[in-house]
Amino acid sequence: MTRDEALFEFCLRMGDSTLVLGHRVSEWCGHAPVLEEDIALANTALDLIGQTQLWLGLAGEVEGKGRDADQLAFLRDAWDFRNLLLTEVPNGDFGRTLMRQFLFDAWHSVYLARLLKSSDKRIADIAEKASKEVAYHLERSADTVVALGDGTEESHQRMEAALAYLWPYVGEMFAGDAVDAAMAEAGIAPDPAGLREEYDALVGRVLAEATLEMPESRFAHKGGRNGAMHTEHLGHILTQMQWLQRAYPGASW
Amino acid sequence: MTRDEALFEFCLRMGDSTLVLGHRVSEWCGHAPVLEEDIALANTALDLIGQTQLWLGLAGEVEGKGRDADQLAFLRDAWDFRNLLLTEVPNGDFGRTLMRQFLFDAWHSVYLARLLKSSDKRIADIAEKASKEVAYHLERSADTVVALGDGTEESHQRMEAALAYLWPYVGEMFAGDAVDAAMAEAGIAPDPAGLREEYDALVGRVLAEATLEMPESRFAHKGGRNGAMHTEHLGHILTQMQWLQRAYPGASW
Repeated sequence: MTRDEALFEFCLRMGDSTLVLGHRVSEWCGHAPVLEEDIALANTALDLIGQTQLWLGLAGEVEGKGRDADQLAFLRDAWDFRNLLLTEVPNGDFGRTLMRQFLFDAWHSVYLARLLKSSDKRIADIAEKASKEVAYHLERSADTVVALGDGTEESHQRMEAALAYLWPYVGEMFAGDAVDAAMAEAGIAPDPAGLREEYDALVGRVLAEATLEMPESRFAHKGGRNGAMHTEHLGHILTQMQWLQRAYPGASW
Repeated sequence: MTRDEALFEFCLRMGDSTLVLGHRVSEWCGHAPVLEEDIALANTALDLIGQTQLWLGLAGEVEGKGRDADQLAFLRDAWDFRNLLLTEVPNGDFGRTLMRQFLFDAWHSVYLARLLKSSDKRIADIAEKASKEVAYHLERSADTVVALGDGTEESHQRMEAALAYLWPYVGEMFAGDAVDAAMAEAGIAPDPAGLREEYDALVGRVLAEATLEMPESRFAHKGGRNGAMHTEHLGHILTQMQWLQRAYPGASW
């Protein structure tokens, strides 16, 4: 694996996670419990899709085969996606959607902070733009996790269930492999394992305020970020996301 | 409109309704309340898809442009579909799925009985094969409507709600147009309006046994059978149904 091959994989990992989560969040459009949340979620989705454009655009540039962000987003099949499994599991109720968002935002925020110092200026530039947006995402999702966790008995129970459901997807964020090692060696991106402590501290503070207990288990579903095995849900997302571009190749507007 | 153009439309109307309903019914695969029903629904779906192959195969033959049943099923967009709107509305709960099946089976059975005497032997042949299957579909769906309508208080209420939801989609079955007039004149297919009385009598008997009241309203959603306007649901069905053939053009197995 050359450094550019590793860099291509790294960009896909970033861009596919924001793409798939952006799609999931957009599913709430017109369905959120109150208008304010509906608009906030739509804006979050737009931010994530905007970041996707940057990451997949860079991926295409690094790959050097003439594929642009649109082609990478719409014309790959499930086995070529590199998103975290956390981003592809179904939304569930509003509480679970926001718990997932929080668990992702916390990782995203910690990770992007390191990418600000990337030896690759293109990556540092994307990280600078994205980290401002993500700081706001994290503020909102953390506030909602606290409000619902420390809310009514029902909302507390739902957030507890959401955390139990989602926690096994957290570990994948910190499981490094050869791609990560190559990125770390080149000073392009951090070793994911080294971020776990900071993540746990951040997440732990918010969960404590939300009167929710941080699960102890370190069992982790993996296979999304390295493409070894996605859940069945990714295929369903792609049928919806890609139908138009598949049915009308090269369509533009 | 030449007679063959009308015949092509007629075949699409038959085949698209069985295709879309077959897809809807197949959504229950692995999800029905009991195994027996799961298998029965899967078999119904298979029957309907098998009939689709015959109808769309004939459509392609009549059209004479080299399109086969697969191409007609998988490579048309929503505005070219001619299925009854009744077949594309979401399944809802098990009761509503079976109420829809019953309302469709009753029409299907009455209509196919006339097609047995079609002046076009190809159509009479399809009708002969299909009507045997549909007689069985109707027996099952009618029995279930009676069992759930005349069941518990909750099942009765659900079937009442299902009937109220679905009834406005019944009228479309009997709204004839120029295509139907051309088919009737050629002795190929009956004038739909002439079947309403028989349909109402059949449906009325079953609903009475199910202790359900037949709605009086004749308001009817239209636009599926003539292609003027489908519901938003058809597009979602097509994204799922067509993704594979769109992503892998010409794929076979």
